[in-house]
Amino acid sequence: LTTHILLIDCADRKGLVHHITGVLLRHDANITSNHEFVDHAAAHFFMRTEFTGEVDRGRVLDELRELLPAQARARFGPAGKRRIVVLATREHHCLGELLLRHSFGELNATIEAVVSNHATLGPLVGRFGVPFHAIEAGELSRADHEQAVIEQIEAYQPEYVVLAKYMRVLTPAFVARYRDRIINIHHSFLPAFVGANPYRQAFERGVKIIGATAHYVTDELDEGPIIAQSIIPVDHTQSAAAMMQAGRDVEKTVLARALRLVFEERVFLNGNRTVIFE
Amino acid sequence: LTTHILLIDCADRKGLVHHITGVLLRHDANITSNHEFVDHAAAHFFMRTEFTGEVDRGRVLDELRELLPAQARARFGPAGKRRIVVLATREHHCLGELLLRHSFGELNATIEAVVSNHATLGPLVGRFGVPFHAIEAGELSRADHEQAVIEQIEAYQPEYVVLAKYMRVLTPAFVARYRDRIINIHHSFLPAFVGANPYRQAFERGVKIIGATAHYVTDELDEGPIIAQSIIPVDHTQSAAAMMQAGRDVEKTVLARALRLVFEERVFLNGNRTVIFE
Amino acid sequence: LTTHILLIDCADRKGLVHHITGVLLRHDANITSNHEFVDHAAAHFFMRTEFTGEVDRGRVLDELRELLPAQARARFGPAGKRRIVVLATREHHCLGELLLRHSFGELNATIEAVVSNHATLGPLVGRFGVPFHAIEAGELSRADHEQAVIEQIEAYQPEYVVLAKYMRVLTPAFVARYRDRIINIHHSFLPAFVGANPYRQAFERGVKIIGATAHYVTDELDEGPIIAQSIIPVDHTQSAAAMMQAGRDVEKTVLARALRLVFEERVFLNGNRTVIFE
Amino acid sequence: LTTHILLIDCADRKGLVHHITGVLLRHDANITSNHEFVDHAAAHFFMRTEFTGEVDRGRVLDELRELLPAQARARFGPAGKRRIVVLATREHHCLGELLLRHSFGELNATIEAVVSNHATLGPLVGRFGVPFHAIEAGELSRADHEQAVIEQIEAYQPEYVVLAKYMRVLTPAFVARYRDRIINIHHSFLPAFVGANPYRQAFERGVKIIGATAHYVTDELDEGPIIAQSIIPVDHTQSAAAMMQAGRDVEKTVLARALRLVFEERVFLNGNRTVIFE
Repeated sequence: LTTHILLIDCADRKGLVHHITGVLLRHDANITSNHEFVDHAAAHFFMRTEFTGEVDRGRVLDELRELLPAQARARFGPAGKRRIVVLATREHHCLGELLLRHSFGELNATIEAVVSNHATLGPLVGRFGVPFHAIEAGELSRADHEQAVIEQIEAYQPEYVVLAKYMRVLTPAFVARYRDRIINIHHSFLPAFVGANPYRQAFERGVKIIGATAHYVTDELDEGPIIAQSIIPVDHTQSAAAMMQAGRDVEKTVLARALRLVFEERVFLNGNRTVIFE
Repeated sequence: LTTHILLIDCADRKGLVHHITGVLLRHDANITSNHEFVDHAAAHFFMRTEFTGEVDRGRVLDELRELLPAQARARFGPAGKRRIVVLATREHHCLGELLLRHSFGELNATIEAVVSNHATLGPLVGRFGVPFHAIEAGELSRADHEQAVIEQIEAYQPEYVVLAKYMRVLTPAFVARYRDRIINIHHSFLPAFVGANPYRQAFERGVKIIGATAHYVTDELDEGPIIAQSIIPVDHTQSAAAMMQAGRDVEKTVLARALRLVFEERVFLNGNRTVIFE
Repeated sequence: LTTHILLIDCADRKGLVHHITGVLLRHDANITSNHEFVDHAAAHFFMRTEFTGEVDRGRVLDELRELLPAQARARFGPAGKRRIVVLATREHHCLGELLLRHSFGELNATIEAVVSNHATLGPLVGRFGVPFHAIEAGELSRADHEQAVIEQIEAYQPEYVVLAKYMRVLTPAFVARYRDRIINIHHSFLPAFVGANPYRQAFERGVKIIGATAHYVTDELDEGPIIAQSIIPVDHTQSAAAMMQAGRDVEKTVLARALRLVFEERVFLNGNRTVIFE
Repeated sequence: LTTHILLIDCADRKGLVHHITGVLLRHDANITSNHEFVDHAAAHFFMRTEFTGEVDRGRVLDELRELLPAQARARFGPAGKRRIVVLATREHHCLGELLLRHSFGELNATIEAVVSNHATLGPLVGRFGVPFHAIEAGELSRADHEQAVIEQIEAYQPEYVVLAKYMRVLTPAFVARYRDRIINIHHSFLPAFVGANPYRQAFERGVKIIGATAHYVTDELDEGPIIAQSIIPVDHTQSAAAMMQAGRDVEKTVLARALRLVFEERVFLNGNRTVIFE
């Protein structure tokens, strides 16, 4: 029995669910899970349907497009695991978590390679038999370094690029090339801190909570659509270093959770927000 | 614009969503929120649909029943707020939370009266202008006391009976009379403790977490379908009394959350489980 | 048996705990709970000691001051409950929580009065028999309105002023008058939002977490030392209004928790941070 | 500068803190962190002191023992990392987390070896260059198999034995041999479930929370003193298998946290409870 994940988003109008499920019924599909959401302010409709059946996906999409509003997006989630390249710098916590889950088939993705601007994490990646490419910035200009990184990424033709604590700023060209396909994790605080050394700032501010946010990357640094967030409590006995360690534990958990949601096709982009069907 | 909440559960079969939404479309309903879930093991289908439109509810139900499987349940969530009677004993925390929310219209329910087996909470209830009936057990047999409580409840014809730390055991007859309409809150521990004074036992066992569970009441004491659970961390510095106070804070939050879910018609019973559409 | 809470903070140096406990031992005090913390970066020492015994507090303090470094602060937590005045505007959630806890003696404080810039909350406060003073701004200048508020507060000589969603900006003069004695609750987001209507901004940004921060008030608006923080998860199905309601639930819990910590003398100020002995 | 961790527990009596810190002061120790707790019901005193200084540990202990009550326990936390052996069966999640943290020096312990009753996890352990010993039960009696496991453990002379989802029941002899030195992780539920396949039972009961408990192992199966607990929310859409996966995520986090507490000498046993100084 083949399982299919059908993903639709379009302008909202009456009868969408009825007409969409009508197409599926004619193709003798057996719906096993169905989620819809309407963003009323934007008058936009989102739907994720899992079904089993031996359907001709092309014909299903053709019939759907005939009845959906103009500009509707309808697609099937790709079969098999997502191909991803992970970018990292020196911190191992997020990368290690992904490599472990990957090695036991828990990520719904294949880590094709890890690319880093430092050699530090090579041994860790090597333990898991995943290709590792250190591209140090050295004398290179930002543009030239990034170009070298892109060329390495392109060798693997990934569907997603995951930033697992990659500490380089990406250019708009990079972001545009992998539009809606770059996922980042970063620390988050209440209140937020701008500038260098945020854990030091958080410590000096005496925060009682350290958070992490996983999000799509857009041109606005750390401002793309949020996929997952979580926090961990801290207190006055913890140094800035201890807060950073606590932050790492929550970062790796949040990133793994966000990737699971994305790779299971549970996340829709909705402007600068997300719609998540769990 | 009238809003309707349509609730359906029935044996699962192909085409249900299509056919149900077809009925709504013919009645010119505008679906604003739609949730479905299929329990595959039980082959059972659950659906909650909010829509706007000027429909004849009776005719919608008639048409639905024609196309749904036998034994299907289809109903509209009642208009307006739920009528409830709250039972309590001596502890004020859950009752106070409900009275406060009620007084500001945040409960989607009208507290018709509070009935207690003690007079203790009378002054609290009086502050909010809600009728209070103390029915002390005194010399009464269990059956006679419960009968007096039932008569008082019946004077208000409530849709739900909420046990806000009511410390009397209910008879099967009571449970049967308000089948699927009694909601209870009780403390929960990891591990669980049987017998008297569970907070003392939890303290002596050195638990690090105190929890609370809101559930429907069935004949199995504290074993009915779970609606909501939450926990609060505790540590070795807290006495059994302090753990009990921490437990109260989580109990009142969990009960309020469970009632919101039930009174917004977001909870389906599924055997001894619940399906919750948030 | 009289219980005392001794609070000391001073420059750190060797032997402090030994010398302090020596004084207590000579006075035949029986220490029941003892917390110390050293901020190594600031070389500052904090200590909270609960003990029982019939001591002459003045003599204990005199002896301590002789052996402590210059500028040391040593004091006993006041006997009995704290006298507080609560300021509020139109939102009832935090105020209601405080009134309920107060009415059952759970706050370690006496709410002497509630002062508001609106009449809205009068009926709620009235239910609990607490004096309520509405001082509407009307045609008054900011300074004149605040002066009227201060005069009303002063009539009660409170030890603390609690801002339970008081929506007026305080002048530096007000803050200086009640230095280290004003506690505020405000919403918090990851990321933070500046400007009007933060819940609307949080909604538009698609945050997955809503938080609240209780803090001492300093001249830096919403930037004083943090006492307690917590969060609640939200998702795309929640409107800005629903997020605001979720935020209220966490605000009231965090404020109550912060007040408990402060009124039990568990909070030390440490520059713009707090040291909290739970 | 040498850092020392001094750990004392003894019958409570007046003056303990004063006398203990007096010894340290005479040895010119500089206390950097100090925690005390008195279990009043048991009249028992616990103290953990970190200090720097070039002291003769033997002489400090001798002087302390002279002034402490009979049967007092006073010891220094051992220098360096703890030597541990990890026992596992087939599940990789806890073991992988420990191996990762270990490989980056984050565990305050050296994993000397992993011993398993199955060969399954050999490749994972091999990635990290840690010795792996599969001792399959096969035709062996329970006693003979355990004896073989003990012999393998003994080859490494570990200070602690960590059960990272080791699915064999230990005999009282095993527990006695490593008394207070075996740490286990197991799933926990609200309510608790007895017997086979607890995740299936939890699923069928419709729990909304899955928990994990790390504890010392005593003869009472899964009933030893609790070190750490945490939970993760689940809902009706999750199958028993999905709940088990959620449980694994919380188990690995709780076990890592418990080990950090134990290996940093932050945990005292107090009868069947723990005192934890964070």
